[in-house]
Amino acid sequence: MADYTPTREDRFSFGLWTVGWQGVDVFGGAARPPLDPAESVHRLSDLGAYGVTFHDDDVIPFGSSAAEKEAALKPLREALAATGLQVPMITTNLFSHAVFRDGGFTNNDRDVRRFALRKVLDNLDLAAELGARTFVCWGGREGAESGAAKDIKAALDRYKEAVDTMTQYIVDSGYDLRIAIEPKPNEPRGDILLPTLGHALAFITELDRPELVGLNPEVGHEEMAGLNYAHGLAQALWHGKLFHIDLNGQHGPRFDQDLRFGAGNARGAFWTVDIVENGGYDGPRHFDFKPPRTEDFDGVWASAAGCMRNYLILREKVRAFREDPQVREALSAARVDELSQPTLTEGESLAAFRAEEFDPEAAAKRGMAFEALDQLAIEHLYGVR
Amino acid sequence: MADYTPTREDRFSFGLWTVGWQGVDVFGGAARPPLDPAESVHRLSDLGAYGVTFHDDDVIPFGSSAAEKEAALKPLREALAATGLQVPMITTNLFSHAVFRDGGFTNNDRDVRRFALRKVLDNLDLAAELGARTFVCWGGREGAESGAAKDIKAALDRYKEAVDTMTQYIVDSGYDLRIAIEPKPNEPRGDILLPTLGHALAFITELDRPELVGLNPEVGHEEMAGLNYAHGLAQALWHGKLFHIDLNGQHGPRFDQDLRFGAGNARGAFWTVDIVENGGYDGPRHFDFKPPRTEDFDGVWASAAGCMRNYLILREKVRAFREDPQVREALSAARVDELSQPTLTEGESLAAFRAEEFDPEAAAKRGMAFEALDQLAIEHLYGVR
Amino acid sequence: MADYTPTREDRFSFGLWTVGWQGVDVFGGAARPPLDPAESVHRLSDLGAYGVTFHDDDVIPFGSSAAEKEAALKPLREALAATGLQVPMITTNLFSHAVFRDGGFTNNDRDVRRFALRKVLDNLDLAAELGARTFVCWGGREGAESGAAKDIKAALDRYKEAVDTMTQYIVDSGYDLRIAIEPKPNEPRGDILLPTLGHALAFITELDRPELVGLNPEVGHEEMAGLNYAHGLAQALWHGKLFHIDLNGQHGPRFDQDLRFGAGNARGAFWTVDIVENGGYDGPRHFDFKPPRTEDFDGVWASAAGCMRNYLILREKVRAFREDPQVREALSAARVDELSQPTLTEGESLAAFRAEEFDPEAAAKRGMAFEALDQLAIEHLYGVR
Amino acid sequence: MADYTPTREDRFSFGLWTVGWQGVDVFGGAARPPLDPAESVHRLSDLGAYGVTFHDDDVIPFGSSAAEKEAALKPLREALAATGLQVPMITTNLFSHAVFRDGGFTNNDRDVRRFALRKVLDNLDLAAELGARTFVCWGGREGAESGAAKDIKAALDRYKEAVDTMTQYIVDSGYDLRIAIEPKPNEPRGDILLPTLGHALAFITELDRPELVGLNPEVGHEEMAGLNYAHGLAQALWHGKLFHIDLNGQHGPRFDQDLRFGAGNARGAFWTVDIVENGGYDGPRHFDFKPPRTEDFDGVWASAAGCMRNYLILREKVRAFREDPQVREALSAARVDELSQPTLTEGESLAAFRAEEFDPEAAAKRGMAFEALDQLAIEHLYGVR
Repeated sequence: MADYTPTREDRFSFGLWTVGWQGVDVFGGAARPPLDPAESVHRLSDLGAYGVTFHDDDVIPFGSSAAEKEAALKPLREALAATGLQVPMITTNLFSHAVFRDGGFTNNDRDVRRFALRKVLDNLDLAAELGARTFVCWGGREGAESGAAKDIKAALDRYKEAVDTMTQYIVDSGYDLRIAIEPKPNEPRGDILLPTLGHALAFITELDRPELVGLNPEVGHEEMAGLNYAHGLAQALWHGKLFHIDLNGQHGPRFDQDLRFGAGNARGAFWTVDIVENGGYDGPRHFDFKPPRTEDFDGVWASAAGCMRNYLILREKVRAFREDPQVREALSAARVDELSQPTLTEGESLAAFRAEEFDPEAAAKRGMAFEALDQLAIEHLYGVR
Repeated sequence: MADYTPTREDRFSFGLWTVGWQGVDVFGGAARPPLDPAESVHRLSDLGAYGVTFHDDDVIPFGSSAAEKEAALKPLREALAATGLQVPMITTNLFSHAVFRDGGFTNNDRDVRRFALRKVLDNLDLAAELGARTFVCWGGREGAESGAAKDIKAALDRYKEAVDTMTQYIVDSGYDLRIAIEPKPNEPRGDILLPTLGHALAFITELDRPELVGLNPEVGHEEMAGLNYAHGLAQALWHGKLFHIDLNGQHGPRFDQDLRFGAGNARGAFWTVDIVENGGYDGPRHFDFKPPRTEDFDGVWASAAGCMRNYLILREKVRAFREDPQVREALSAARVDELSQPTLTEGESLAAFRAEEFDPEAAAKRGMAFEALDQLAIEHLYGVR
Repeated sequence: MADYTPTREDRFSFGLWTVGWQGVDVFGGAARPPLDPAESVHRLSDLGAYGVTFHDDDVIPFGSSAAEKEAALKPLREALAATGLQVPMITTNLFSHAVFRDGGFTNNDRDVRRFALRKVLDNLDLAAELGARTFVCWGGREGAESGAAKDIKAALDRYKEAVDTMTQYIVDSGYDLRIAIEPKPNEPRGDILLPTLGHALAFITELDRPELVGLNPEVGHEEMAGLNYAHGLAQALWHGKLFHIDLNGQHGPRFDQDLRFGAGNARGAFWTVDIVENGGYDGPRHFDFKPPRTEDFDGVWASAAGCMRNYLILREKVRAFREDPQVREALSAARVDELSQPTLTEGESLAAFRAEEFDPEAAAKRGMAFEALDQLAIEHLYGVR
Repeated sequence: MADYTPTREDRFSFGLWTVGWQGVDVFGGAARPPLDPAESVHRLSDLGAYGVTFHDDDVIPFGSSAAEKEAALKPLREALAATGLQVPMITTNLFSHAVFRDGGFTNNDRDVRRFALRKVLDNLDLAAELGARTFVCWGGREGAESGAAKDIKAALDRYKEAVDTMTQYIVDSGYDLRIAIEPKPNEPRGDILLPTLGHALAFITELDRPELVGLNPEVGHEEMAGLNYAHGLAQALWHGKLFHIDLNGQHGPRFDQDLRFGAGNARGAFWTVDIVENGGYDGPRHFDFKPPRTEDFDGVWASAAGCMRNYLILREKVRAFREDPQVREALSAARVDELSQPTLTEGESLAAFRAEEFDPEAAAKRGMAFEALDQLAIEHLYGVR
């Protein structure tokens, strides 16, 4: 067995807000002291990560002056320089401060929307300066608890306006940045706009510069809607829109658990790594999890290390699965490859096609042999092949 | 109070498979005898519907010859002629026969895909002949229970190929028909392709003739994923893609309940009627429900009548809500209209915009007044205003 | 129509933590300033409530000395005296402070369990002193995120030990108090012990003094597990264990929404009020909701008023429903009363019983007439009868 | 690695209705021909099972005369004799025939209740004759879709009457049989009575002979309510009520999937086997799954074999986990054993207890070390330790 020790080449990145979460939730206060971002950089570097990501407010206190901002960034810059860690992605906090109680881009209050957009533009500058290539937008407070409170079509207009303004600014500034929208169905709002990756993919097609905008789907967010995350990633890749990923763990429709990767839906994690590794994604393997409130800092780092270790374990498994001759045979028995053949023959006339004879009763007797195939997959997951 | 008696002008339509459901489920056999389609037409006409819809197999036994098909259609045609009922929509059964055990358009077996596509092309001819304007595609068996069984990207290629073939045939045939895709997250497959209306909207943008393809979202299917159906309809309208709707009732993530409209999520039904009536939709009000297996035919017709009656009750309520001066005041207090104003002023320079002063602490003190607004809505729903 | 103005006789009570919630959640900080408990008492009194309830920490800062405790209580006592409001229920906060990160009664750390139990005993004294008759135990942090972390059988032993100690203390002290356990399936823990009212009912039967312990079921907590709250209340009443209720609103399996009563599952709220009014419950109508973070204090009070108003609206509806002659006829057509007849005839021999003739095929033709009955209920809910 | 070949000593049993499911669901007809029960016995014997279970109707066509019944049983008896397979459990079908459209024991129609009870009494005779020790009651149609249709308290009275009649008959007949109630939250009814194992545990305590009645919890049924199945088994064992188990797979709140064991929630399956093996359960390891409709008979048997194989794989894993010295250290670091110590010291006075000093701020700094422990568990699950 491999030793599952992460290296820079594995391109693991972590949000500073993940290890830095103090454990505040609806039912209780902080269970851990604040964590200095620079320390997080050093610790994550030691654990084998290649990058860190953050919301502006994770590093720069809300409302900072330019001088305060620079002072707040200095130790982070030094830690990045000292460790060689990158900042592949940056995102904006438009959800924590009470001014965003009704969201940022789609707040009913125009002055708040304007403030939100300025905050994002400032953050685009920072992203470019730090060399980030992806700029994530999670609209966690864009939504509603009640039906009349939000004009959804107007909200989508404003959402579009905001993202269009961002992409225009990126182009005008010559920034090498792409936007990645992160969908979520609910929590903290009763219902959130762009609730699944499908809704976000559709939204993107209406933008001025769709080529600059893609997705940052999160395991837990899709699974909160009972959706298959690996299927979602596959559809995102089919559209050429998988710009970034948020890996974590969840147990189906309930509150947003943000478990460490590999410690939620294990079977789903296997197929997630399969599509991430084999489906054409080439971005960071980014973890957006929360070390449970039960943990002290030892637990925080154990949890962070576990994310990477589980990814590497699963990566080895999916490689073995795809290379297993018995699996290939089972895939063939299940006619999985046959789906890649066009249904119509090139140049075939519809008339000839429609005249074709077929015996559905005979064909109905054929089994798909999926259970035997899936048993092989499960045995790879369980590590017994 | 109005008498809530439906008329043709209300444009209520029903699937023949709704009242005709015999109650077969995973756990039990038929609880009602078969219902003659012609009788359904007469009964639904008497109840006030303006149209019926059906799957080919609802009327024409699977495997019928051309002569058998015509014989099966004859009494239906006569009933339509006698009643004046329309057939605004037709759809194809690619899920009941065992040959479709792995789906139709995305079955791993190419010969089954070809058979499915022929069945659909035949049904397009019938749709055109009967004057239907919408052709629904529900891919209920397009999906998988296990991760390796289905190559999702290949499946989306095949799905696209099938729909592109359909639209080409529609154009070549000069048919006045549009396709409406009906999403569903799961059941009967473990996970279904195009699981939400968002995923289907995105898919449509990749088609050869996206202008001919839109959505047929169903209340229960979206609510099975915990999604807000009215929000989904609003997004579909925003994309110009709400071609048809399937109204029924559901109680959140569980099996597909297909309750009569108005008898599931009542609050959701209110907002559904609000967006259907006020959001720009102009198609039929189509019911896709299942009279519970507890009922005999009296219950079947009571249930069908209830769908329409509940729609009319809710339509009256949403009209009253939108016209209520106190509601308008509350909407204004909640700044709902302000969201229709662009965030940026026309011609405003970004530099000037970014230099604007704003006091987030002061703005954070403002409440949104959504609870007072929603209370008015609830009181309209409850009929006490 | 009635004016739906609450009076003391309606026995509406509110947790101080409900209107006092500052809006802190996992994703954001306080959106409202702290609310003085005494002010809440006055405001709730003005709105028509008859009582307030609270956790010790809602009024007495965690870690207060005896003098500090008395100082903190003084304004509350004065407000109670001034308004005449009662304190029908008190509960203990064993979940907010970080010391309870792994729970109170079932924390793996024995010293924390001992601390939790002392905190509860102190609070029993306060409850008795303030004249409360119900003492709620919500074990929100009693649970686990991972399988090995908690020995569930040992945890149930400790849970039992704690409650047995409490009831012994109540008896020894001569307090006129009963304990009400509040179940919840998850959040803030991944899985919580005693996840539904069923689990708690079973647990109670193993206690030393089961007669002193009952339930405090919450609408949202049961609906988070997809369960029918009214059915649950009925079962609790069947066991004689419905000691207290927590009314609010929820939209199925997702995060704990704590919407105002009547603004979640409206159909469920109708049946909830029906069983509360007609099923034998005689305790307070207690609201445990959270005014959404979007609201300022005007919204907080509008939300609180809405809870009571919606209850009164629904109470009027269920009365009208039960008195409606057409409903009685429909209930009879559905043979609902027949279920109250024993299946066996008194004194009937099993031999004779088993020899009875019955034609299941004939009986299978009978419909239950539930749809017609439910349509009447829905029309009462919608206020159109 | 072990070879994971099941033997009789592993005590694996299967319902005849599992491998015999023809694939009929709400959306489609049979996809496999009927399977002769005798053949199933032989095939399951060859695969390594030790027993089969069945509903009366699985073997004896509904409505059979005594002679027809005996004729139907004859090949089954011969197959049992030939293979040595046992019938450890029998259950009654009170849900498939249309006469049970509103349930059996709690049907509103008294004559149907009487018929249901006779059917069960007949089946108790058969169970005793065949040497079954457990008699399962799954009340799949006991429930309602709408609020007025069912008087829940009356329904619980009738449920109790039926089970009390059964236990009296068992005692009077001198049968060595115990009843096991199988809870389910919904499907095929909108809401089912006794929706979780907690509700059923509570119900049992009200029976005349609670000692003869326990539980048969199913993985999928509990997980459909988002509940932790292993936690549920632990509570059932704590009450001494785990009489039987139904193992299968599910992906959270959605339709009842009945996947083969090990192929749903893999992490949950690990903890399930842990509590089944180590928590004091000594009954059969019974599988209640459905080979997906995609499969032919080869897939059916592959699926059945996979259930047993996955159990054996997981059994080896949980043994290794519990024996791993590093795990023991981690359990100790997490103070898991400390929960087995009573919170109070024997003989300790409450006064002394309450006077104890404790520094909650210091204790609040302690982490629980659960993440490190769970990572070890996950690595055992993944087979990399």
